[in-house]
Amino acid sequence: MTAPDPQLLDRLARLLGPKGYTTDREVIAPWLTDWRGRFHGDSVALLSPADSEEVAAVVRLAGEYNAPLVPQGGNSSMVGGATPPADGSALILSLRRMNRIRSISSDDGVVVAEAGVILANLHDAVAQRGMRFPLTLGGKGSATVGGLVSTNAGGTQVLRFGTMRALTLGIEAILPDGSRFDGLNPLKKDNRGYDIRHLLVGAEGTLGIITAASLRLVPAILDRAVGWIGVDSPHQALKLLRLIEGRAGDAIEGFEIVPADSLSLVLRHIPGTRAPLAGEHPWHVLVELDRSDPAAEAPASQLEALLAAALAEGLCRDATIAVSEAQAEAFWKLRDSISEAERANGPALQHDISVPVSGMPDFMLSAADEIRRTYPGVSVSAYGHLGDGNVHFHVRAPDDAPTEWQTSAGPTISPHVHDLVVAAGGSISAEHGIGQMKLAENVRLADPARLMALSAIKAAIDPKHLLNPGKLVPLATDEAAP
Amino acid sequence: MTAPDPQLLDRLARLLGPKGYTTDREVIAPWLTDWRGRFHGDSVALLSPADSEEVAAVVRLAGEYNAPLVPQGGNSSMVGGATPPADGSALILSLRRMNRIRSISSDDGVVVAEAGVILANLHDAVAQRGMRFPLTLGGKGSATVGGLVSTNAGGTQVLRFGTMRALTLGIEAILPDGSRFDGLNPLKKDNRGYDIRHLLVGAEGTLGIITAASLRLVPAILDRAVGWIGVDSPHQALKLLRLIEGRAGDAIEGFEIVPADSLSLVLRHIPGTRAPLAGEHPWHVLVELDRSDPAAEAPASQLEALLAAALAEGLCRDATIAVSEAQAEAFWKLRDSISEAERANGPALQHDISVPVSGMPDFMLSAADEIRRTYPGVSVSAYGHLGDGNVHFHVRAPDDAPTEWQTSAGPTISPHVHDLVVAAGGSISAEHGIGQMKLAENVRLADPARLMALSAIKAAIDPKHLLNPGKLVPLATDEAAP
Repeated sequence: MTAPDPQLLDRLARLLGPKGYTTDREVIAPWLTDWRGRFHGDSVALLSPADSEEVAAVVRLAGEYNAPLVPQGGNSSMVGGATPPADGSALILSLRRMNRIRSISSDDGVVVAEAGVILANLHDAVAQRGMRFPLTLGGKGSATVGGLVSTNAGGTQVLRFGTMRALTLGIEAILPDGSRFDGLNPLKKDNRGYDIRHLLVGAEGTLGIITAASLRLVPAILDRAVGWIGVDSPHQALKLLRLIEGRAGDAIEGFEIVPADSLSLVLRHIPGTRAPLAGEHPWHVLVELDRSDPAAEAPASQLEALLAAALAEGLCRDATIAVSEAQAEAFWKLRDSISEAERANGPALQHDISVPVSGMPDFMLSAADEIRRTYPGVSVSAYGHLGDGNVHFHVRAPDDAPTEWQTSAGPTISPHVHDLVVAAGGSISAEHGIGQMKLAENVRLADPARLMALSAIKAAIDPKHLLNPGKLVPLATDEAAP
Repeated sequence: MTAPDPQLLDRLARLLGPKGYTTDREVIAPWLTDWRGRFHGDSVALLSPADSEEVAAVVRLAGEYNAPLVPQGGNSSMVGGATPPADGSALILSLRRMNRIRSISSDDGVVVAEAGVILANLHDAVAQRGMRFPLTLGGKGSATVGGLVSTNAGGTQVLRFGTMRALTLGIEAILPDGSRFDGLNPLKKDNRGYDIRHLLVGAEGTLGIITAASLRLVPAILDRAVGWIGVDSPHQALKLLRLIEGRAGDAIEGFEIVPADSLSLVLRHIPGTRAPLAGEHPWHVLVELDRSDPAAEAPASQLEALLAAALAEGLCRDATIAVSEAQAEAFWKLRDSISEAERANGPALQHDISVPVSGMPDFMLSAADEIRRTYPGVSVSAYGHLGDGNVHFHVRAPDDAPTEWQTSAGPTISPHVHDLVVAAGGSISAEHGIGQMKLAENVRLADPARLMALSAIKAAIDPKHLLNPGKLVPLATDEAAP
């Protein structure tokens, strides 16, 4: 790859003006590395167009000069999906200046937000109108609408309303040829052929630059009940989930499973935390029921009745319901701190995987057994979104492991975990995407039909491979690699 | 195009055996014309593979000999989507022998059905397990799973659970290169790149042959309440819908709007029908609330309270609730007979269109006004799925029109209707697809980005254009046409 043509840079500088174009190394530096510091890239210029017309002009100019573009929102990818290539051939296309909320309709339950709107700001803006955008995640202070749509983001609150795919009613995007896909109108029925919206959701910026999205809103939460439950096993947790789904399906906002060792890591490493239940339990469940409609049953009494039934039917060992918002927050903090507690504890290999919900309990136990047996001394925690069939399967280093354990053990252990996932009919990326990090593993494990379609569609829509090169789609050279 | 190579036919005959291969003109004849008798094609052979391996072998052989294939299920397309080309160049690939239900899981709420399973049989099979597949439509006695998925079918019951797209959790398909896309496992979270499932849903068989699908099941209906309501206008009907959604959103199974003239055509032409309300009303709404959970409020009392509130708030003129299942069926018969009554009345041009729900009331009135003003003597009825933003916009011939009025007036009036739809930000095909019938109109009206993506993806996945040629995707020659 070659460095960007100086003539291109000159034309981009004139197009975008000083607010939209910089080559200042200090300004660019934070955007050259992913937030976890695993991937490092380089780029001579940071482009920040103000509107979709400028984005279209940038895409056309880049096409004219064969210059790759790396779209960026909050730069909070978990898989290096927004880090430019190291050779400096690409330009960073930041959508952060496009941060307008174009409209909010409470009647229709739709917000139209530009790609650069930060998730936390979106939450605030719609809350002021008595509405709620139901998806949230740890990086809400930096993650942007464009990145959330492009990665089909998930999180702990998708059980009721789904991932970004389900919440994205419409998209405006600039395709690689500079044409604008005008798909913001939220049509509930539209059968005019291939669904371009669904193609762009989760495409990681490789097929087009998303400039705005129409997103589904739901009524604000009136009140909630958060419970902490001790269970025997993932199998019992799943039975408990089925019980709650059967009687309060529309109210379940979250259903997370936490093993005893993850909880103990949190209690050890995170100040101010304490266990919600008195006894010891091998597994725990965090459940949240919500209501928006004052005429509906109050979540607290609903959850109380459900947990009483669960105890009576032998579907849990013990349970408690938070008696205040502060306690509800404390329960959630236990769940949300697992990742941080693990980092404090030592090196770990993290796997964001999914299998069919009904197969998850077996998978959690048997895969953990096999990994522990094969790599003596490692610990395994699988925790997270049981109701979505999606857990974070973490393999922690043995106590005496050297600091570079991740680098040395990863290339052996992670493919082993992925093989087990594939054997269980699952996905090696449930919610984080492929990016750079899982590119080779996806090529190794995806079935030929899926890889054929992936490469063929990329070549058809972006024949010069200029949008987010090196992410998600293998180049011919990647495919040839062993 | 040339006739199929005799050597190919010989190899197909040997591959499929006598049950799977026929050249008998009498057997083939019914599948050469669409069910409404508008499109006529020809084909020398009807291929009926028994399983997905045979489908893959047929696709590979056809590719080797450059022979086009036209996939067929129940042959009940509304847009000529399953009728072979008239030149006899293509072979019909019927999926009807693949009619096994592979599995039903009540726990997971998933049925895996092969492409040839007829919708009514699917309903029966899951009902025996206490479950329900919630989508239904007039052609349920002939429409098959493969066709329903390939056309993203809708119907009168999509308000609560969505169209086929939302109900299709997984797909098995043979791609044009003969590879098998194994996507039946219903993963709730899977971010491994472009969503092939969503690409195949609604692709009208142009990107792959769907051989099986995993479909969402919901609990069986315990009881229902069906109401018939007189309203002033579509605007009032929409306000009524918002009221019901706000208080009983999860229970709304159907919400259909019927204008006075459609009702009077039904009363005139369909024996045994009578008006549910005593007075005259300019517009009517049919609403159905359901419950599956015995602990939920009974739909009848829920609907009674809602309609009392609507009357008090001036959101309707009069209303009645069916007092028996027989009366509920009679209310639905009024709605379901509109098409038949119109056909009995005389020639009409039918348009299956959608606009954003909030814009539909304005559109229904203003578009009808403009068409009536421009073409003196015609009548216009817009009726149907108001809650989906999807109405059937029918333009009926003047009283003295000649029998060939449809053929003479169609090429002027239909493009006019479509122009109004596009101006309102809508779709010229809400649920029937593009097929042959709307191919030219879609090319005329779709934005360049959408057409680019449509043609590029088709060329990438099916470079020889062998799957369902002449449907949905314009060939180079179609695009060049004026």
